[in-house]
Amino acid sequence: MTAPTHRWPVAVLGATGAVGQAFIRLLEGHPWFDLVEVAASERSAGKSYASATRWLEGALPSAVAALEVKACTPEQVKAPIVFSALDSSVAGEVEAAFAAAGRLVLSNAKNYRMESDVPLVIPEVNGDHLALLTQQRANRGWPGGIVTNANCAVTVAAMALAPLHTAFGVTKVFITTMQAVSGAGYPGVPSLDILGNVIPYIGDEEPKIETELVKLLGTYNGETIVAAPIVTSAHANRVAVEHGHTVCMSVAFERAPTPDQALETLRAWKGFAAVQGLPSAPVPALVVRDELDRPQARRDVNAGNGMAVTIGRVRADNLFDLRLVAMAHNVVRGAAGGSILNAELLVATGQLDGLAAS
Amino acid sequence: MTAPTHRWPVAVLGATGAVGQAFIRLLEGHPWFDLVEVAASERSAGKSYASATRWLEGALPSAVAALEVKACTPEQVKAPIVFSALDSSVAGEVEAAFAAAGRLVLSNAKNYRMESDVPLVIPEVNGDHLALLTQQRANRGWPGGIVTNANCAVTVAAMALAPLHTAFGVTKVFITTMQAVSGAGYPGVPSLDILGNVIPYIGDEEPKIETELVKLLGTYNGETIVAAPIVTSAHANRVAVEHGHTVCMSVAFERAPTPDQALETLRAWKGFAAVQGLPSAPVPALVVRDELDRPQARRDVNAGNGMAVTIGRVRADNLFDLRLVAMAHNVVRGAAGGSILNAELLVATGQLDGLAAS
Amino acid sequence: MTAPTHRWPVAVLGATGAVGQAFIRLLEGHPWFDLVEVAASERSAGKSYASATRWLEGALPSAVAALEVKACTPEQVKAPIVFSALDSSVAGEVEAAFAAAGRLVLSNAKNYRMESDVPLVIPEVNGDHLALLTQQRANRGWPGGIVTNANCAVTVAAMALAPLHTAFGVTKVFITTMQAVSGAGYPGVPSLDILGNVIPYIGDEEPKIETELVKLLGTYNGETIVAAPIVTSAHANRVAVEHGHTVCMSVAFERAPTPDQALETLRAWKGFAAVQGLPSAPVPALVVRDELDRPQARRDVNAGNGMAVTIGRVRADNLFDLRLVAMAHNVVRGAAGGSILNAELLVATGQLDGLAAS
Amino acid sequence: MTAPTHRWPVAVLGATGAVGQAFIRLLEGHPWFDLVEVAASERSAGKSYASATRWLEGALPSAVAALEVKACTPEQVKAPIVFSALDSSVAGEVEAAFAAAGRLVLSNAKNYRMESDVPLVIPEVNGDHLALLTQQRANRGWPGGIVTNANCAVTVAAMALAPLHTAFGVTKVFITTMQAVSGAGYPGVPSLDILGNVIPYIGDEEPKIETELVKLLGTYNGETIVAAPIVTSAHANRVAVEHGHTVCMSVAFERAPTPDQALETLRAWKGFAAVQGLPSAPVPALVVRDELDRPQARRDVNAGNGMAVTIGRVRADNLFDLRLVAMAHNVVRGAAGGSILNAELLVATGQLDGLAAS
Repeated sequence: MTAPTHRWPVAVLGATGAVGQAFIRLLEGHPWFDLVEVAASERSAGKSYASATRWLEGALPSAVAALEVKACTPEQVKAPIVFSALDSSVAGEVEAAFAAAGRLVLSNAKNYRMESDVPLVIPEVNGDHLALLTQQRANRGWPGGIVTNANCAVTVAAMALAPLHTAFGVTKVFITTMQAVSGAGYPGVPSLDILGNVIPYIGDEEPKIETELVKLLGTYNGETIVAAPIVTSAHANRVAVEHGHTVCMSVAFERAPTPDQALETLRAWKGFAAVQGLPSAPVPALVVRDELDRPQARRDVNAGNGMAVTIGRVRADNLFDLRLVAMAHNVVRGAAGGSILNAELLVATGQLDGLAAS
Repeated sequence: MTAPTHRWPVAVLGATGAVGQAFIRLLEGHPWFDLVEVAASERSAGKSYASATRWLEGALPSAVAALEVKACTPEQVKAPIVFSALDSSVAGEVEAAFAAAGRLVLSNAKNYRMESDVPLVIPEVNGDHLALLTQQRANRGWPGGIVTNANCAVTVAAMALAPLHTAFGVTKVFITTMQAVSGAGYPGVPSLDILGNVIPYIGDEEPKIETELVKLLGTYNGETIVAAPIVTSAHANRVAVEHGHTVCMSVAFERAPTPDQALETLRAWKGFAAVQGLPSAPVPALVVRDELDRPQARRDVNAGNGMAVTIGRVRADNLFDLRLVAMAHNVVRGAAGGSILNAELLVATGQLDGLAAS
Repeated sequence: MTAPTHRWPVAVLGATGAVGQAFIRLLEGHPWFDLVEVAASERSAGKSYASATRWLEGALPSAVAALEVKACTPEQVKAPIVFSALDSSVAGEVEAAFAAAGRLVLSNAKNYRMESDVPLVIPEVNGDHLALLTQQRANRGWPGGIVTNANCAVTVAAMALAPLHTAFGVTKVFITTMQAVSGAGYPGVPSLDILGNVIPYIGDEEPKIETELVKLLGTYNGETIVAAPIVTSAHANRVAVEHGHTVCMSVAFERAPTPDQALETLRAWKGFAAVQGLPSAPVPALVVRDELDRPQARRDVNAGNGMAVTIGRVRADNLFDLRLVAMAHNVVRGAAGGSILNAELLVATGQLDGLAAS
Repeated sequence: MTAPTHRWPVAVLGATGAVGQAFIRLLEGHPWFDLVEVAASERSAGKSYASATRWLEGALPSAVAALEVKACTPEQVKAPIVFSALDSSVAGEVEAAFAAAGRLVLSNAKNYRMESDVPLVIPEVNGDHLALLTQQRANRGWPGGIVTNANCAVTVAAMALAPLHTAFGVTKVFITTMQAVSGAGYPGVPSLDILGNVIPYIGDEEPKIETELVKLLGTYNGETIVAAPIVTSAHANRVAVEHGHTVCMSVAFERAPTPDQALETLRAWKGFAAVQGLPSAPVPALVVRDELDRPQARRDVNAGNGMAVTIGRVRADNLFDLRLVAMAHNVVRGAAGGSILNAELLVATGQLDGLAAS
């Protein structure tokens, strides 16, 4: 890992929402990035960020409070690195406009995730997929580019499965999620819907989990991503938890490990080498707990400053080979923090050097 | 269904706990049974029920409030039908003593469930298994007998799977549960453990689900129960819900139905014929909902006065054949109400006639 | 109480919201009223009620599911008795139009509550205030009229204070409320705001409590309501409770009762005589509990089918004379059920006879 | 403030409970104190701390995990500074034994709080009351001593009232609390009692609030504490919040301030001078927020690392002079953190110098 020779100005699009706010919290005091611009919908543009926002957690950094909210256009927003927390209803056009204007967009929206020339990246899992930017620029004529984050639930699953897939070849996965309300943004889930309740449905979530997982665990062959040959089946549920998606999995392998072999592999995993030492990279990336009743959303969600995935209950399965439970912070690891780590990896590996020149 | 020619006096053992209280609520105004005795631990014996109990829901029926709490012995408790909400640490000996003394014990404890000569019964699912009482009496020399309820989580799964198993032959099931805190009794789960949290572990629950399911869906061949040839894998979780266990399942079949065929089968199901018309039998036994986001614990838990199982999200599965979600009241259908329905079925089918004479 | 000689057709305005749905639940099977029309905003008009509504609790009555949603105008909606669950942003004009068209509107909106010629009525507390309708019709030239419900939090306080005020003369009250999320309607309070939280503010709630209380406990002198000479101070809080507002009060009196005298008065209270025997009138109206830790929202909210107020912890106060806690169902007693009881009282006392003729 | 010239070894009694665990978390990396001993009941003594404890939040510090749990006797536990999280059922004798053995005990138990020669101290509020240790040693012949923390709810109220009392003379206070479940320890409040509920009673809490407040705001006259001439009335409630007690107050004064004067006083307050700069002293001690809907337990509980009190909604009162809301972390500011700050103040002011020699 090479620290950059200069600080990078960055912007946040969709800055007033729940993920936008998380970007602001996580960028405060960042060693490489300076948050210089915030942008949001027309309704907020022109106001101070403090007056345009209902701040949800802790204290709003005073430097950001005073920023004027800009419109989400590359004319208004000048930073070369742009974090996007835009809603998918507008992300498609806006993010393309920024990429066309030579900016590197790190997007949380679903719009481009499954495009064949768009990297869908969890740095530790498949940081090498960022090389797809070259194809993207060639295909689309964009001097900048778009790099996407995975869905917040699939991020938890993919982090836990990545080392096992490398070592033993995952072939099938049953995934049941119990997802926090912050995954739906703000105002998001009405309290009358979720207090004392479980909602066994999250719109469009199960297909995202099933399709994004095989791209994340796929292989970059120098030209494109070859999807991992894994069949998945997902059950997505919403529970009365603030932050932290819990994921139960039953997994089949080409070469079935014992639970002890799996635990050893999970504990030893460091992930994509270039991620080591990045400012937002948790150490370890996977926290393996021995207690029978962990991970727990409320108690483990802040492991690794919200960037680690906590894993427990690794045990044999009656139908497939292994059962396990994984949990991570859906807003940090599963959204804003994941984008920031992607940006750090791009910077550290020199993939933004041309951008710096622009 | 034949209504009995006389009212039956009944007793509740373990009457001060959460399930014991549910028995008392459900027996109030029962058309066939008169609650005449309540019994609990030595610590409570001799007190009035009102003073021995921290009553948890609604108003304590005044006739019960005044009952003297007896010790849990067949000498003290005289009723021929005995509902047991005893903890498994004491249920083994106490229930045997009552059976030996000629009483019919309807037990919620796990102790005898998997004994080969003890019926484990959900009336609509396997009411014919009650015939095992004949073997039990012969084997053990008990003039009375023990009939057990299933675990509260497996009850939900078994009710939903029973019609599908009959029609299409279930072969494999993945089960992930999200269970209410009342399943752990009172005081049960500490609030510091479950507020805003998911606990991905319930002691001994997964093995119960896996073993009880195949007995429940098994076949009585005139002598014994032949377990259903189904392999199951369970993930049990505790969530911040008061009442209502939600169960996500992926199911493989010998003859895979389409989702529509499965829905038709579920909607048409009536279960074991002799259950029709029993006082506590819900109509329908299975409530199938079309909304994408149902069943929901808080909103559907009281369907059929807490005795119905609500089913939704019947859809194709990528790995097996079908996915679906089922939910029911763990304390009513999954415990006290299930025992009462068992007793009604025994009475209606004349299987307690000898007992009546004793 | 005289039962009416004919059934009354009734309509619900604002039928798709949380309070509108409560009207529909409570009117199902009503002995005097037939729900024949539902109306809502333009967006819903013309659809079937089932398709226009996200039904929140239990099962939608099938007769209502099929009703076509009408627009909220007296031309479209013909019923002589109209229950209004309209938002205050539109209730002002719409309710006046119905009153001008000869309908009796029972309103949950705040718009007309403090008008000097509009009855603000909790039947047991001040059913005699309905006589103000005569002045209202004279003043406004309305052949129909508007009768309002109190705010849901002040309803709880007023029911508990009414008998004490009559007997001992309340002079000062401190009121701290802990209010359920359903008081904010649907979608209402975002789950991210209230899970594991207390919000010590509810917009406009404290002034409503302070001003409505003295009108409710005021005296009708044949012409107008003379406000009760009580000074109040309110602290309104939102808590993570589904239904049931809890209210802590410290009360000063002209003639201070002992706690025992207060308890005796509360237990003996029947309220306005003409309310006795009305279909929705709870018996008793006040449930006084002796346990130290009651009332509790979740456990007592359905007392008297949601129409009773539960009171506990009546004890001496160090600064004023008495402290006590009261709790009731904010959607039933505090909104829809209160309106229905108002309508029943109007019918039973013949105050709608002219209306019937229209 | 003078930093100590040497590090102090410290011990925690009652180390396995919720407050004991908070001590351990807060002492990790403490600049002045080294946690060298943990002690608990006989049942735990002899085990490693890790095996004796169900650790509730975050990660157990590894150095503590390995400590052997000792019995709670001054023979076993040697540290000169002893933090006590003992239950009141045993704290009386045990804490006296440690004081008699020359140790300075910082106690969270209620046993000695109201003794006339025992300091009941919130450092910023009444740090000068620590001088009472001189009388205590003289009276009791203890070479060590006992210093107590206030009840967790009254701590919140006293911090908010202290500057107002100094400036304007508080005479009367109505206090309604909404207290977090962690205030009841672990396992504490059963989830079946508090999910979706408010419990309007906490055993013995209201008298504690009423009596401790006037001692805390009282005056040390060189010999004893003269209680503040304030009459209080408390309503204590338990709510479904993990951490953070919210307190609504109506306050009367000798010289009534306007809300703006009160806000200015609260914002300017620094408290007892010797507390400035202590390692655990929050800056500011009081966080005054302008938003209408703050403080909020979940969002503000960690202000000042859990040591600050957050205040909002300062407004006029109809009956007294001012209304306001205060909130703080009951386990940190209201228990373990308060004790540690007391110890820091004793060290910094040289009041433990003799102890150091022992």
